[in-house]
Amino acid sequence: MGRHDIPALVAKARDGDARSVARLISLVENGDPQLPEVAATLAPYAGKSLIVGLTGSPGVGKSTTTNELVRELRRSGKRVGVLAVDPSSPFTGGAILGDRIRMQDHTTDPGVYIRSMSSRGQLGGLAAATPQAVRVLEGAGCEVILVETVGVGQAEVEIASLADTTLVLLAPGMGDAIQAVKAGVLEVADVFVINKADRPGADATYRDIQGMLGLGERGPGDWRPLVVRSTAVKSEGIDDIVAAIDKHHGWLDQSGRLQARRERRAAVEVEAIALGVLRARIGDLRSGTALSALAAAVAAGAIDPYAAADELIKGL
Amino acid sequence: MGRHDIPALVAKARDGDARSVARLISLVENGDPQLPEVAATLAPYAGKSLIVGLTGSPGVGKSTTTNELVRELRRSGKRVGVLAVDPSSPFTGGAILGDRIRMQDHTTDPGVYIRSMSSRGQLGGLAAATPQAVRVLEGAGCEVILVETVGVGQAEVEIASLADTTLVLLAPGMGDAIQAVKAGVLEVADVFVINKADRPGADATYRDIQGMLGLGERGPGDWRPLVVRSTAVKSEGIDDIVAAIDKHHGWLDQSGRLQARRERRAAVEVEAIALGVLRARIGDLRSGTALSALAAAVAAGAIDPYAAADELIKGL
Repeated sequence: MGRHDIPALVAKARDGDARSVARLISLVENGDPQLPEVAATLAPYAGKSLIVGLTGSPGVGKSTTTNELVRELRRSGKRVGVLAVDPSSPFTGGAILGDRIRMQDHTTDPGVYIRSMSSRGQLGGLAAATPQAVRVLEGAGCEVILVETVGVGQAEVEIASLADTTLVLLAPGMGDAIQAVKAGVLEVADVFVINKADRPGADATYRDIQGMLGLGERGPGDWRPLVVRSTAVKSEGIDDIVAAIDKHHGWLDQSGRLQARRERRAAVEVEAIALGVLRARIGDLRSGTALSALAAAVAAGAIDPYAAADELIKGL
Repeated sequence: MGRHDIPALVAKARDGDARSVARLISLVENGDPQLPEVAATLAPYAGKSLIVGLTGSPGVGKSTTTNELVRELRRSGKRVGVLAVDPSSPFTGGAILGDRIRMQDHTTDPGVYIRSMSSRGQLGGLAAATPQAVRVLEGAGCEVILVETVGVGQAEVEIASLADTTLVLLAPGMGDAIQAVKAGVLEVADVFVINKADRPGADATYRDIQGMLGLGERGPGDWRPLVVRSTAVKSEGIDDIVAAIDKHHGWLDQSGRLQARRERRAAVEVEAIALGVLRARIGDLRSGTALSALAAAVAAGAIDPYAAADELIKGL
């Protein structure tokens, strides 16, 4: 890879050039050495988008719901970005999600940018890469950014929870409500979406979730998660989901929590980058003489490994 | 936990006091603040033991083989330490492996120390904790230390590969030979042990392994892995395993590779500790004002997260 003209790429991305957006996200995904320059160029455009996390177990209808949300948001003229984060996906990022047939509804719409994310080169993995990709989409003028993750691992739950508003999708049956509690998903949900609401058991799932919310402890000013029902394959209830997102956004804004959430998100992001940088610096030492000399001293019993680690850190 | 008198504990451990050994390993496992002092006190005793890694899929007979190896090594009067590393184990370290019935053969033998390892508090997990536990056993005068890991994850393979000599156990059938290649186990094996050699298919497994070894590229001075057969439940072939370990040890010594391996092990150890220390320092910043201020600046778009991470690192 040659050097990229980052200011030019960002300028084109801001003009809505999908190829430039794609290239910037690829830089993020590959942990490109120019990443700090990308971040610096994008910094002024931070905080303009509404970030919506969307998570849930496989099979609850995340892709279909995302697709319908995009359609609904486009109806009101908003520019929309979608990041589909799947650590287990065999995707080598860069391609639009060609296999997600319903998503193809939007591939010819210049107001929509859809991208799958993997974590190939990025130090700190998806936890570090996703916020940077969000920044690219913010820079590209997306007013709403949907971050879709498979809510199975703690990492994906954390990624979703870094959104302004986090949707947790459930489906009737499957013991999903219980699973949600186990996975720690309950704590991060701002809105529960019971999808496939036309199926038997939807009422029971609704009651389960409401029951669990009743048990949760909340302060007087705290947000009580909303529970909405949808049947995404029939395009039903999507307006209710959007209304719930709007309602939560309004509350975030009025309560001052939006700022707090974004600062928390930035703190996590900065931490992840700092750790990645330090890990890379230590890795660089492998080829140098400092670590070899320390290792030889440790192997010989002349110094203990903790003292050696201190020496190593001093040399960073 | 109160403060421990580390020099006294190490002195008692050197005298063969099993309780002191147990307490020192617990400090390691829990990531005790006194760990650097433990390491410093143990440093002079480094490099005296032969470290033997033993890995393989569940069901190949690792525990039985370990037990038999202990018996064989004890026959020649050697003090033996065993670390059973199992990240998925529900063990809360500190107990001798009471449920591993055959291991109980040795619980009354003061020349044997057996311990299961989990990675509860240790920064850097088992990759950081295991070498420290090995150091405790070295300090306690164990001449041979067996580190048994379940060879399913990359981490466990890496732990095993940090030994002086790494045994990879296979059993006939199960497609183990193929699995071994997949898991990257082939590269780390110094000795292949085909256990359950009385079962049908043992010859085929032997041929498979020899065939794969024939394909591997080796320089003229490189070690060609040995392949031995055993039936540990019948105590058969254990002497062959010990002979193979001895042969490999002799080669390591004469070729100068023993020193190289130990320095590499020390380098990995120092790196892991350094990363753990840095991660902890960054974690400490969470409660401080530096990170909050940087995060607020990032959220406001006044600074990009990479520049903020640099600031954070400068403050460490």
